[in-house]
Amino acid sequence: MKLYDFTIAPNPRRVRIFLAEKGVEIPTVQVDLMQGAQFSPDFSKKGPLNEVPVLELDNGVCISQVNAICRYIETKYPQNPLYGSTPEEIGLIEMWNHIAFMNGIGAVAESFRNSAEMFKDHALVGPHAYAQIPALVGRGNQRTLDFFADTNQHLANHQFMAGDNYSVADITALVAVDFAQWIKLDVPAEHEHLKRWYAEVSKRPSAQA
Amino acid sequence: MKLYDFTIAPNPRRVRIFLAEKGVEIPTVQVDLMQGAQFSPDFSKKGPLNEVPVLELDNGVCISQVNAICRYIETKYPQNPLYGSTPEEIGLIEMWNHIAFMNGIGAVAESFRNSAEMFKDHALVGPHAYAQIPALVGRGNQRTLDFFADTNQHLANHQFMAGDNYSVADITALVAVDFAQWIKLDVPAEHEHLKRWYAEVSKRPSAQA
Repeated sequence: MKLYDFTIAPNPRRVRIFLAEKGVEIPTVQVDLMQGAQFSPDFSKKGPLNEVPVLELDNGVCISQVNAICRYIETKYPQNPLYGSTPEEIGLIEMWNHIAFMNGIGAVAESFRNSAEMFKDHALVGPHAYAQIPALVGRGNQRTLDFFADTNQHLANHQFMAGDNYSVADITALVAVDFAQWIKLDVPAEHEHLKRWYAEVSKRPSAQA
Repeated sequence: MKLYDFTIAPNPRRVRIFLAEKGVEIPTVQVDLMQGAQFSPDFSKKGPLNEVPVLELDNGVCISQVNAICRYIETKYPQNPLYGSTPEEIGLIEMWNHIAFMNGIGAVAESFRNSAEMFKDHALVGPHAYAQIPALVGRGNQRTLDFFADTNQHLANHQFMAGDNYSVADITALVAVDFAQWIKLDVPAEHEHLKRWYAEVSKRPSAQA
């Protein structure tokens, strides 16, 4: 098994943190997105969307999409479950994980991919060329600030994103907050609950992954 | 348990098809999105994003997000698994389910929500007002056509979206293709593999849900 990775990118980091929490090590191969290595003929065969992370199994099957890779790992290595155990936990964790992905990672990516020169003709992930849309920079920034405010309010009554236990939803939200540095947005000082949670999840050893 | 639903909307239909495939019945409550009922004070307490579907458990806990509701149901009613059984199946199904959501449902929604009068100040789901962006209508249409083409190519070598078995990824892709009617886009006649698959999944009784 090997994980196609690019150390500085947010989405592969979600998988690396997940692996660290599980205590599982998988060899990684760097795919230099800054050089467009995701569009090479060889790497294009490893997934439909020319992106990292991709998990290549020993039989050659390739799995892309962070949530899919993490589900594979969760099923193969059930220790330290990060997707919950009971139906209710499983539902709530997937709910908050998806919200953190759409409104956190998605918001920052919207701003970043519509402004960064390297994504000039690839404002969306994948093989197709979609032009940048300037109006999405401002909308992405606003959505990121709304994500901070909404998450702060949610964490006023919850220790972690999906309740009393650390889960994959915390990994997604943590990476979203750190990814916001790429568009120069910090969590505002008044969001005390988000800051409390951020300090707690950031000090776990997995956050260094 | 009850499911907050709106019959004509695509996302609740994904849950209804899922339930039909599992052979599980849950009472539904209609939330009239055309009248803005998702923003009523009562319904606003049932989830952070003012959307349907929402699954309300008997203890009052509410789960939103289609994938979260379906995961809850899959865990509680394990018969006829729609998310796979082995780690590899589970990973591949989640991968193709996510791609069908992002590039299928997401593409059509991008076009529709940025053009329909009813979403004038709510181009994105949730409580925040985001204005429509005219450039996203054309981009959403193009992404929908690209989704058709990409899925056609994928299905040239696969009976179903994630391989040999019908799964939740087929439900998401089916609803995406039907949702494209809302933006007046049909699967082009030359996409024979997509048409073969569409005929097959549409004739299952669950498609009427």
